[in-house]
Amino acid sequence: MAKAARANAVVGQSGGPTGVINASLVGVIEEAKKHPEIKNLYGAVHAVEGMVKDEFINLKKLTLATIKDLIASPSSALGSSRDKPDEAYCAKILEVFKKRDIRYFFYIGGNDSANTAHIINTMAAKSGYELRAFHIPKTIDNDLLVTDHCPGYGTAAKFEACALIGDDLDNRSLPGIKIDCIMGRNAGFLTAAAVLGKRRDDDGPHLLYFPEKPVSMDKFLGDIEGVYKQLGRCVVAVSEGVCDTDGVLWAEKLAREKETDAHGNVQLSGTGALADFLAGKVKGKIGIKRVRADTFGYLQRSFAGLQSSVDVKEARQCGRMAVKFAMKENSGSVAIERTGSGKKYAVNYFRTELSNVAEKTKKMPDEYINAEGNGVTEAFVEYAMPLTGGVPRSEYLGNRPRV
Amino acid sequence: MAKAARANAVVGQSGGPTGVINASLVGVIEEAKKHPEIKNLYGAVHAVEGMVKDEFINLKKLTLATIKDLIASPSSALGSSRDKPDEAYCAKILEVFKKRDIRYFFYIGGNDSANTAHIINTMAAKSGYELRAFHIPKTIDNDLLVTDHCPGYGTAAKFEACALIGDDLDNRSLPGIKIDCIMGRNAGFLTAAAVLGKRRDDDGPHLLYFPEKPVSMDKFLGDIEGVYKQLGRCVVAVSEGVCDTDGVLWAEKLAREKETDAHGNVQLSGTGALADFLAGKVKGKIGIKRVRADTFGYLQRSFAGLQSSVDVKEARQCGRMAVKFAMKENSGSVAIERTGSGKKYAVNYFRTELSNVAEKTKKMPDEYINAEGNGVTEAFVEYAMPLTGGVPRSEYLGNRPRV
Repeated sequence: MAKAARANAVVGQSGGPTGVINASLVGVIEEAKKHPEIKNLYGAVHAVEGMVKDEFINLKKLTLATIKDLIASPSSALGSSRDKPDEAYCAKILEVFKKRDIRYFFYIGGNDSANTAHIINTMAAKSGYELRAFHIPKTIDNDLLVTDHCPGYGTAAKFEACALIGDDLDNRSLPGIKIDCIMGRNAGFLTAAAVLGKRRDDDGPHLLYFPEKPVSMDKFLGDIEGVYKQLGRCVVAVSEGVCDTDGVLWAEKLAREKETDAHGNVQLSGTGALADFLAGKVKGKIGIKRVRADTFGYLQRSFAGLQSSVDVKEARQCGRMAVKFAMKENSGSVAIERTGSGKKYAVNYFRTELSNVAEKTKKMPDEYINAEGNGVTEAFVEYAMPLTGGVPRSEYLGNRPRV
Repeated sequence: MAKAARANAVVGQSGGPTGVINASLVGVIEEAKKHPEIKNLYGAVHAVEGMVKDEFINLKKLTLATIKDLIASPSSALGSSRDKPDEAYCAKILEVFKKRDIRYFFYIGGNDSANTAHIINTMAAKSGYELRAFHIPKTIDNDLLVTDHCPGYGTAAKFEACALIGDDLDNRSLPGIKIDCIMGRNAGFLTAAAVLGKRRDDDGPHLLYFPEKPVSMDKFLGDIEGVYKQLGRCVVAVSEGVCDTDGVLWAEKLAREKETDAHGNVQLSGTGALADFLAGKVKGKIGIKRVRADTFGYLQRSFAGLQSSVDVKEARQCGRMAVKFAMKENSGSVAIERTGSGKKYAVNYFRTELSNVAEKTKKMPDEYINAEGNGVTEAFVEYAMPLTGGVPRSEYLGNRPRV
């Protein structure tokens, strides 16, 4: 590996925002300032869109007050993009990079972003231009390979836990059937996190459905009816990516208009249609009036003021590590290894190849899902709880002995 | 007024939960312990339902750890009820009260609860049974008369501010049109609170619609198109109780099945239908693809871990004051008077007649709504901001000068 050149660097944020993607950006900024190899650090406005349009801001000049607010701010402060660059698109980016003497490329995003970094890195190498490209993981879905977990997940998981603590208490207070639709196209990690605030045996969510476990409408309705008969109430958390036993998304079955994004995906979020559809089915089958459905929507990924302290710290460190790795290596994706669990929770950071992460998704392992496919195991709770930085305690009195 | 009798007391929590209704319960418990006139303090399980069914728990025996968790817990820890007792129902309650020597009745709830307290208090007086009845205000809608504001509102307002900070940043990051449906059947206070996190001139929400200001679909769509043309994005906050210019609820217009609760109200929450309906209209009119809609649903009233410190303190104090007032007066509703504003925000508590609060609702005053009817005034921000206990600061970089 050649010595790191003294040149400019660019950083971008891609895909759906998270609660800590700006902490990763701050990590890149902080570490970049320590390395004289990095002259200017450019922030690409709206990710690859800013890279082709040559729209950059100067990130080395931010005040400490701005940095502080930035760490606490959800969403992508540089702006994001859903563009999925092909070779021609990447060639344009490389042209801009060459023009600006950019030789370090840091890209915070999911598996598509790792792929973009991989394409541009390979293309640069072929043209004899040294460009170091590093991917910094982020996703609320927690579905990237190699890394133990993804920055962004812990904060979103904390949101789900706080939401379901409240929602279950609400449904105890005014009992009925409540269905909550939670983000997660391919992996059920986020829906699973809905259990993390449970304290009492009969606390909800009582049933969970994941993309990993196709379920028939009959099974779904039967499960709910069973809990309702037992407790007189039932809280259900459903991944938006849940499939019927024929492998077709429930959301797809009901969609009248299949709006798709540039990646060819059906629109799952930003609509209450799936939740309302399921509530209708439950009303029809079980015949009780108080059936409610909420779709948590974009609140899950961008709510202000509710970060996981652990997630913030790790996201920031992932940003720093990307810059450190770039001083020694040509490319890679930053990954997290868990080195201690429970109260001794601890992590290390390591580099993995971009190709190990690019375009791949991780499913929730079977050991985290119960045998029935409608709940989680203790192993999942042990895995996810430390990532939230802790969840609030709750109290309910209505089940105390009568006097 | 006769000297307060030594007898038992009951407390109940009615209607939709809030984030601090348990703090009011704690206030009642704490103060009741100080007064030997109150022998046992019974908690009515599921409000009036527990009162007729004689289902009570003992509240003087809670541990300090339980009290601490209780203050922080959203929703109604005793269970709630949507029953709206008529005279016959109230007569049954009075029978149970007499049997148990209950002569103090504390009822935490909205205007319906004030009415229930009023009916039972009047009925008791007619039958020559001394029963002191006090209403403790709670509602996220902030729509009770007399009081400056309602416990429960500040916490829900903070939720809306945090939600919209994130949602607007999200919509900057991936620009489009975003519609957020917010609770509020009769009053727009909660929707108005969506502005409280705004820091930059072009921050969203850019448009707000309230039950107080009927709006035609044409005006609504024209407003959105105007903002979208100017900024390339638009965030809209809509009260679920917004009406068309003919006075009919938008939600009612679209409802195929008009599910109503025992109070004769159309179901507005627990469904994404209104938001999806509006998103469809916007897509049809403005013809851009990225239109998203979220319905905040029950998260707004029961989210764990996001209380307003000011709201908690005041809710608790309202509970204490109800007990204090009951030592000297026969009935009343606790109200809050604002005695200082801005950084010198301060309040006093006073008693008002139950009949001043019962069955009445307050609208948001005209001085809080802009001339166009699609936004708030500075006067509203001055009114609402102190109630949130402060909202998070946010940062966005994408609009900085290009380099």
